[in-house]
Amino acid sequence: MEIQWTKIFLPEIKELIETKDFKGLRDFLRERHPADIVDILRELNPTERVMSFRLLDKNKISEVFALFEPIEQEELLKQFTEQHAREILIQMQPDDRTQLFDELPAYVVERLLKLLPSLERKEANELLNYPHNSAGRIMTPEYVDLQMDMTVGKALEHIRKTGPNRETIYICYIVDETKKLRGVASLKNIILANTDQLIKDIMNENVFYVHTTDDQEKAAQVVQKYDILAVPVVDNEDRLVGIVTVDDILDVVQEEATEDFQRMAGIQTIEEEYFRVGFTKRVSNRISWLVILVIAATISQTILRSYSGILNSIIALTYFIPMLTGSGGNTGSQSSTLIIRALATGEIKTTEWWRIILREFKVGVALGLIMGIIAFTIAAISLRQITLALTVGISLSTVVCVGNIVGIAIPLFFRFVKLDPAFVSAPLIATLLDATGLLIYFEIARRIFTIAAS
Amino acid sequence: MEIQWTKIFLPEIKELIETKDFKGLRDFLRERHPADIVDILRELNPTERVMSFRLLDKNKISEVFALFEPIEQEELLKQFTEQHAREILIQMQPDDRTQLFDELPAYVVERLLKLLPSLERKEANELLNYPHNSAGRIMTPEYVDLQMDMTVGKALEHIRKTGPNRETIYICYIVDETKKLRGVASLKNIILANTDQLIKDIMNENVFYVHTTDDQEKAAQVVQKYDILAVPVVDNEDRLVGIVTVDDILDVVQEEATEDFQRMAGIQTIEEEYFRVGFTKRVSNRISWLVILVIAATISQTILRSYSGILNSIIALTYFIPMLTGSGGNTGSQSSTLIIRALATGEIKTTEWWRIILREFKVGVALGLIMGIIAFTIAAISLRQITLALTVGISLSTVVCVGNIVGIAIPLFFRFVKLDPAFVSAPLIATLLDATGLLIYFEIARRIFTIAAS
Repeated sequence: MEIQWTKIFLPEIKELIETKDFKGLRDFLRERHPADIVDILRELNPTERVMSFRLLDKNKISEVFALFEPIEQEELLKQFTEQHAREILIQMQPDDRTQLFDELPAYVVERLLKLLPSLERKEANELLNYPHNSAGRIMTPEYVDLQMDMTVGKALEHIRKTGPNRETIYICYIVDETKKLRGVASLKNIILANTDQLIKDIMNENVFYVHTTDDQEKAAQVVQKYDILAVPVVDNEDRLVGIVTVDDILDVVQEEATEDFQRMAGIQTIEEEYFRVGFTKRVSNRISWLVILVIAATISQTILRSYSGILNSIIALTYFIPMLTGSGGNTGSQSSTLIIRALATGEIKTTEWWRIILREFKVGVALGLIMGIIAFTIAAISLRQITLALTVGISLSTVVCVGNIVGIAIPLFFRFVKLDPAFVSAPLIATLLDATGLLIYFEIARRIFTIAAS
Repeated sequence: MEIQWTKIFLPEIKELIETKDFKGLRDFLRERHPADIVDILRELNPTERVMSFRLLDKNKISEVFALFEPIEQEELLKQFTEQHAREILIQMQPDDRTQLFDELPAYVVERLLKLLPSLERKEANELLNYPHNSAGRIMTPEYVDLQMDMTVGKALEHIRKTGPNRETIYICYIVDETKKLRGVASLKNIILANTDQLIKDIMNENVFYVHTTDDQEKAAQVVQKYDILAVPVVDNEDRLVGIVTVDDILDVVQEEATEDFQRMAGIQTIEEEYFRVGFTKRVSNRISWLVILVIAATISQTILRSYSGILNSIIALTYFIPMLTGSGGNTGSQSSTLIIRALATGEIKTTEWWRIILREFKVGVALGLIMGIIAFTIAAISLRQITLALTVGISLSTVVCVGNIVGIAIPLFFRFVKLDPAFVSAPLIATLLDATGLLIYFEIARRIFTIAAS
């Protein structure tokens, strides 16, 4: 079934609701995938939404609930009875529950935790103890564990029995008595083996894993590099405590990419979907950076005032200020984009910084030469003054070279001092290079015009 | 095992090579995951690399080969004997082979196609016929197909028999005699069912699929939305022709994000990893956009010259040119980033454009007011001229509002005329807003100073 059918079915659904055909609505919803049910429920008003929720099959309710954005989940919880909320929370997958608690205000989380039975509450608290955006936060403890001396036949029996409550049965984890991870076995290998073979003989001892405190981005890199369906997570004593499945990794990858995008443009990260962010938040997310940059722009203003002498005598110098500051900023944001993205996907490491800077220096020189010649030509044609054209050309070449290196060096430096390179937003680089570009421009202008005058 | 161990093991490997301990090297490589083998081989010189390739287990060779970048694969193929190259090509997964052919020069592909047996050659040609970056290009025809009237027991037998040659056995596809897709069944459901049950009774008829000509991004959206391990691909007669598994989707998602990043910064898309792009290509990828922008910057230069009168009389106006052009560009690239990313992940559709523009207009006004007041204050403090400060403040507010809308409208317009919104790079928006900002600034300046003079 194609994705964009929600709008087609919406009139039908509204009719079922208006005619109070609850059986019809229940049957209709039963056929739908939870992700599509979420789309439908979003189009209803709050009363219709809560009512439709009650019509969902018991085993689907928590799945559907988990797919809403945290801000919507908070709204829904307010409208459910405490009993209803309790049922949903207990049924939710541990990693979905952690994600919900992660986003809610603390006092709401406290109240909800009290609704959970002690076992689930303990589990929830443990998961919430892990650092934000760590593998421990997004993992689920519901994996299949096997023992090394099991036969394949016995393993399959165990999988059949525990399977319904496991996040995935396609990868099984072999642990010893101390719960240390000893190997992995795919369901494919288990199925294709003889039933009398021992698990330890068919398992793969070369296990790729992450620690609970590792960043979720690292878990994503492991899954992507080794093409595995889930990555096991161990605690600091190397005991297996959970897994992160590839569907959650897919969400992490999109989330991290969106975050990087927004940071690069100087926006405080917005984790919710576009239309679900409130007005005040939207302004406040963007304003801090923009204000910083306005204030930083006063540097440019100060620089220009200090050169007011030469500005007054050669007005034509001002004509090229936008071209110069713009080119510096453009080159810098190009190179910083390349580096930030390559750092994020793990293609380069900070230890290679010297090699990277040397590489980019050569590229910067080439770019600067080409652009400087073009700028010189443009200036010469429009102003017919060789001295000025020379100033513009040489300044542009220099600004481009400098801008290129600055765009590379700053993200590398950020990563080196353990800050997120994506915080080095394009606006930051642009503003820095505005000021630098002006200094370069006027210093070169002064020297060239002094030489020309003598 | 942690990721960054390649450097640790490299001395050991080099020693095995130098002492010609081929058995030792073969044993060592046998234990490693193909992705790690690629890391090791990259650290060796070409001769050592080809030699190590010959030591790989036969069933691993094509897997390892498929993980190299196309430019590296081309190099390796040149160094292999024709027989060796043939073996590797035949053994490769169809989707990996298509990806290789996709990137190689046409004459090389012709030669390689001749090496394939007729069945594989036909398959390769079919896959290459699909549009670039389509689902058809990245799919594999090696899926498990079942019939509706099979028993679960018979299905498991079939899976065990054909399994070793299938990309995945965890999702099975039920087709009828005309090869139309009738349902899906997960291996989990098959295993948990009774062996006498019929497949048609346990299968899910609600199938999510894409067409061969759909964009790979759409396949990624389906997989991500419905949390499935693979998405089936049908031709224009709705017959099942292949599947795209989630590991390939993960690569698609990263690739698309990196592409968007680079386009946003005005870089022609570089599909290879950072260090594998040659010098000339690196310069040419970036130069075209930068040159266009230098030329576009002549517009700014022309605008400034046309206002040379007012520039001459009020030199202080130039002090704030960078602040104005910069703020317009920063605001514009912020809003365009938000929109481009939201369009790419499917969070908003172009049909909602009016709603989006209205939303952003309000945000732009708020941002503009705040920043305008700050700019006015800065100008008033440093120059002690109310008229000038007023000009700067009002201009900045206007430039920010306009920049915000422009940053939203242009990507939306691009998507509307079916171009990729990410081509609307930050440098493009910045340069456009430079010129617009200058016009706004000087027009406001003229009016305010005329009013002040009268």
